[in-house]
Amino acid sequence: MAVPIVGVVGGGQLARMMVPAAIALGIEIRVLAETEGSPSAIAATAVGDYRDVDTVLEFAKGVDVITFDHEHVPQAVLRALVDAGVSVQPGPDALIAAQDKITMREMLAEIGAPLPEWAAVHSADELQAFIDAHGGAAILKTPRGGYDGKGVRVVRGGQEGADWFEQFDALLVEELVDFRRELAQLVARRPSGELVAWPVVETVQRDGVCKEVFAPAPGVASASDRLAEVAHDIAERIATGLGVTGVLAVEMFETTDQRLLVNELAMRPHNSGHWTIDGATTSQFEQHLRAVLDLPLGDASPTNRHAVMINILGGPQHEAITDRFARAWQHHPAAKLHTYGKSARPGRKVGHVTVSGYDLTEVTYQARAAAACFDDEEQ
Amino acid sequence: MAVPIVGVVGGGQLARMMVPAAIALGIEIRVLAETEGSPSAIAATAVGDYRDVDTVLEFAKGVDVITFDHEHVPQAVLRALVDAGVSVQPGPDALIAAQDKITMREMLAEIGAPLPEWAAVHSADELQAFIDAHGGAAILKTPRGGYDGKGVRVVRGGQEGADWFEQFDALLVEELVDFRRELAQLVARRPSGELVAWPVVETVQRDGVCKEVFAPAPGVASASDRLAEVAHDIAERIATGLGVTGVLAVEMFETTDQRLLVNELAMRPHNSGHWTIDGATTSQFEQHLRAVLDLPLGDASPTNRHAVMINILGGPQHEAITDRFARAWQHHPAAKLHTYGKSARPGRKVGHVTVSGYDLTEVTYQARAAAACFDDEEQ
Repeated sequence: MAVPIVGVVGGGQLARMMVPAAIALGIEIRVLAETEGSPSAIAATAVGDYRDVDTVLEFAKGVDVITFDHEHVPQAVLRALVDAGVSVQPGPDALIAAQDKITMREMLAEIGAPLPEWAAVHSADELQAFIDAHGGAAILKTPRGGYDGKGVRVVRGGQEGADWFEQFDALLVEELVDFRRELAQLVARRPSGELVAWPVVETVQRDGVCKEVFAPAPGVASASDRLAEVAHDIAERIATGLGVTGVLAVEMFETTDQRLLVNELAMRPHNSGHWTIDGATTSQFEQHLRAVLDLPLGDASPTNRHAVMINILGGPQHEAITDRFARAWQHHPAAKLHTYGKSARPGRKVGHVTVSGYDLTEVTYQARAAAACFDDEEQ
Repeated sequence: MAVPIVGVVGGGQLARMMVPAAIALGIEIRVLAETEGSPSAIAATAVGDYRDVDTVLEFAKGVDVITFDHEHVPQAVLRALVDAGVSVQPGPDALIAAQDKITMREMLAEIGAPLPEWAAVHSADELQAFIDAHGGAAILKTPRGGYDGKGVRVVRGGQEGADWFEQFDALLVEELVDFRRELAQLVARRPSGELVAWPVVETVQRDGVCKEVFAPAPGVASASDRLAEVAHDIAERIATGLGVTGVLAVEMFETTDQRLLVNELAMRPHNSGHWTIDGATTSQFEQHLRAVLDLPLGDASPTNRHAVMINILGGPQHEAITDRFARAWQHHPAAKLHTYGKSARPGRKVGHVTVSGYDLTEVTYQARAAAACFDDEEQ
């Protein structure tokens, strides 16, 4: 049987978690990793610079589709792939919205997605004017290079973006949204148009990094709930309007006056969907492979009433991982533990824990307690 | 974080299915495969002959434990590993019972496991005497080398074992059991003693090869059902009595007079447990890794009321696998498809399909219909 081949640019934990899905299906997966010993080393058929056209073109030879672990592949490289006849999913015209936050805001405004008030500012004066018009404070973001809380700050004066104005012609400034919680809507879309949505989830950040995910978002009992419907419609409009293929994550604010506003986009499997590995009929990683190959999408139903995912954020690690596993499993035999083969650094995502079950209080307790076994400061 | 390393001897689909479990946990897995391009090639750090002591000793260097994809590693090789200080799970004293069917019957008789009537016969006359004493027919088995219906035949005369008596000093003969169905009880046991059981399942064979598995066995509503209790007790007695570590599968006959008799043993993940990948909180592959590393075992509860697993038995394949996937998923979006990267041969296990759900009739229909998309003769 001829087996399809998926090439993934980038060797982080998202590529790593595609590998078990590919092995289960019997799909071949090849990874272009940045370094030896990456989290997805087991599937890395090449090590090289994803910014180099020749490296990426060489890697793409013989694959059926190229997809991504991250959004950082330059447009020139993406377009060279397309020109060479390679199927690139998601394609450059969609990916640009995940690469540049100002472009993202422009494209989302054009398709009518609900957004916080925003502007592209080019100077301290313009920034000051936006702050003055929005209650004396705002969120300032670099257009590129931000992740996990980096490239984002709260500002109260036009001078507070001075260092970033040295690096970028324009910065994105947004109103400080008065939100009651953060949500994420994950969908997958095939090139031929089929779209499937997982339940909307609540995400909880700590120091700008995702720490906990509750699936479905508490209080959203079913897909026909108004909040679930609105979240689904927003994500569908973005996926269709921007021509996204593969998994799309739409991070949103639920405002205190009951609106949903789009915060960020990711066009790849996303931290808010890690619970699907253990808690949904089709995981985001399997679905992403199916979607980029334009195969029919899978049932995205949760397999239990609640799932809670807690990230393991690496602090200094003095203990062998087997001792951590032993401690976590001794008291939490239903906890699904995942580690990514990454060296630990404070705040770095090195693994996660998912627990599924009927009772949210119990599930949350079990997930937090199991995750705490990997957390030095809580010993 | 120091990561534990599991070495697996044998590169078939069972080793292959351990790989996703290892990647998810962040455990390192190394496979000694028989050939290049084996089903578990992605994790094969060595290719060589598992019957060669030096090859296996070299492979075992640096691993925390050696375990197996099959039972064929010779006792001399197993004992050389133990002598070299390697943790071998399951160990040679247990594995012998899975390697030689006469030894298995002797060991099971000693610990009081319920068995069909059996004898070791050394000649056509002895075989004829057993047949005469058991209604004119019996099951004859070679002590070693049998699998998937090979090395097993129904005999009605002492001469019908002539070819096998040329190869073996003794053959195993058993009464023809009047059974209403076949069951399998899967358990996992750690070296330190902890044992966890999945629900007892019904297995359906076609031409001596497992074709379908129903989990739990229909009519066995809960673990406190008498049949479930008896099956659990038998498997626990065998695992404990023989000192089995890792996953143990006990294949049993449910007789027409309501007894359970042990048919076969396997000391490794087993076809009757493939449904656990998609249908249980802890899969047999993750559990096997945990057990052989002597880590606490996971919750073996099913995640749904019913799971049905259908093997894909490879006939001639004229179609690309993506076309099969497309056909199966188009109408069965909840079907979990697995293929093993093996070339197709009639009757060869090349993949499987699992569907989980609440209604057994619906689940069975979906699983069979999805599996049929891989079956040339049913197109």
